[in-house]
Amino acid sequence: MDCVLGVDVGGSSTRCAVASSAGRCLGYAKGGGGNPISVGAHAAIETVAGGIGLALERAKIGGERIVAVVFCMAGGLTSEDTAAFGDTLRELGIRAAPTPAGDLFGNFCSGTWQTSGYLLESGTGAGALRIEDGEVAKTSDGLGWLLGDEGSGFWIGRRVVRAALADLDDRGPRTRLTELVLGRLGLAREGQPDCGRDLVDGRPAVVIPALRMIYKWRPVELAGFAAEAFAAGDDAVAAAIREEAALSLDNTLAAVSRPGIRGPVVIAGSVLLNNPGLLDRVKGLAARHLPQAAFIPVPDGVAGAVTLALRQIGVQVGRAQFEAITDSLAALPNR
Amino acid sequence: MDCVLGVDVGGSSTRCAVASSAGRCLGYAKGGGGNPISVGAHAAIETVAGGIGLALERAKIGGERIVAVVFCMAGGLTSEDTAAFGDTLRELGIRAAPTPAGDLFGNFCSGTWQTSGYLLESGTGAGALRIEDGEVAKTSDGLGWLLGDEGSGFWIGRRVVRAALADLDDRGPRTRLTELVLGRLGLAREGQPDCGRDLVDGRPAVVIPALRMIYKWRPVELAGFAAEAFAAGDDAVAAAIREEAALSLDNTLAAVSRPGIRGPVVIAGSVLLNNPGLLDRVKGLAARHLPQAAFIPVPDGVAGAVTLALRQIGVQVGRAQFEAITDSLAALPNR
Repeated sequence: MDCVLGVDVGGSSTRCAVASSAGRCLGYAKGGGGNPISVGAHAAIETVAGGIGLALERAKIGGERIVAVVFCMAGGLTSEDTAAFGDTLRELGIRAAPTPAGDLFGNFCSGTWQTSGYLLESGTGAGALRIEDGEVAKTSDGLGWLLGDEGSGFWIGRRVVRAALADLDDRGPRTRLTELVLGRLGLAREGQPDCGRDLVDGRPAVVIPALRMIYKWRPVELAGFAAEAFAAGDDAVAAAIREEAALSLDNTLAAVSRPGIRGPVVIAGSVLLNNPGLLDRVKGLAARHLPQAAFIPVPDGVAGAVTLALRQIGVQVGRAQFEAITDSLAALPNR
Repeated sequence: MDCVLGVDVGGSSTRCAVASSAGRCLGYAKGGGGNPISVGAHAAIETVAGGIGLALERAKIGGERIVAVVFCMAGGLTSEDTAAFGDTLRELGIRAAPTPAGDLFGNFCSGTWQTSGYLLESGTGAGALRIEDGEVAKTSDGLGWLLGDEGSGFWIGRRVVRAALADLDDRGPRTRLTELVLGRLGLAREGQPDCGRDLVDGRPAVVIPALRMIYKWRPVELAGFAAEAFAAGDDAVAAAIREEAALSLDNTLAAVSRPGIRGPVVIAGSVLLNNPGLLDRVKGLAARHLPQAAFIPVPDGVAGAVTLALRQIGVQVGRAQFEAITDSLAALPNR
């Protein structure tokens, strides 16, 4: 029995699944971050090798049975990555070379067997795709925290912290976000709305330790403050940030949408998946350019990586085969 | 004759001046970046020691004649900085300990002998102060590129690059900034407005090399693209960025302004000094909360550091003494 391997390589976690050529998932394993850009080449290879080894073990099959491998990864695979991951596969007895695919495309293929439609993601980053004839026909955003990712967790979290500091500085309106941000930093307790208003140089003293803490982090860690925008209830500043995030995500989706391609719209990323109010608002806005589109949430791209690997060996993945993949994957003990 | 030493320590350049207790500047030297946060403790001390040594040499006085030293520096001096700079001074024969002052306050004191008024700065960063009774009474912004600095060079440059990428992505309007940004990156020649519109995954191919280049830089280097906002003429996107910068800077100034304190408003930083259109717009906006205030541009904080050092030894620096400092400083050969 020929088998395939799908690997969804993320910056903070990596998922591997082994499936039979009939589309039945036989083994699954999840590990830490495996993207060489995020964690370094050495750690990436160790994580990915560990995940694939465990998935094969759980599937109770040897690496020699794997005839196709798809790696879905942000930024794609460089020629060095391909060589390094190829060595890893050979050490596990897998002769098939890794085929790279984009992480957003992997997520799209996790949501539908259809070969046209859209993907909209908002997690730490944010971006959108239009898929036609099983290929990426248009990409918008996904440009990273410094240059794009509008409506992403980083984008929201950065605005949350800046709004809190503007409040403390008298440059911006008073907002409950201030208390929430200082609370998360351990610089104020809840229920003390005037916390940290002792002055140094006419500025609340708490600003200096807050700056010192945050500038020690990697910038993307500001994404952690996105939760405060959703926790702040009807606070006007927080509501404006949430609304601007929804408008930005719809703008990114609108940039790839095309009248002849109706959907579905696959939805990925923790910010959209964990905040139903935001997702509903994005759906409402998108109805103007994508009327009647179905929205399909997906947790990650591993089912898509398996689907792409099966297609690579000539398997036609239609509705029934796709449901076989996702149902058998969901039934695996470690999934 | 007792003398004083004023040092304006910046991230990219450091200025030292020696003055007599009568307020006549006798020696001046300029060196590279001397802020331990930006360049590291070792390089900072070497630069500052070299600058002070050269200023003393040019003043033709020995270190033992220096009775007061003021260091103006962003972020202030930590206790380790103070100890390390103190060692440097002793090696040059200077027994006086370094007194720290903020860089924005040094800039204010470079512009006026008056002990109340305002400072508004926009260079790589941006912030404002209100001064009362010769001390900082209120501070707003100056929070760095990630958390504040609204209307700064970084703030403008980041918007310029994001607008260009949004144009290439079809998320934003067409703008001349795209051509200017790609030109600065060496990815397109001027006069080719459709440059880089060959597609990969439905995205202009030029986006990928642009991202790779910029993400290799330190984020603050985006400040270099602020020039494109001013070079783009009547382009609507560039004009909107310039207007938003002016509104942000006025908002920061308004946050520190107080009816009883009329001015002057000392203006510092390359973005405000090199772009008269922006400065005029900020002046116009500020007239609403600071009517009739005089605006005084200053190139740096070294005259302010000298002024603060003279005040430390009990010299009353009024209009005549202040003009003696700035006139004698301007007349020095290396200034």
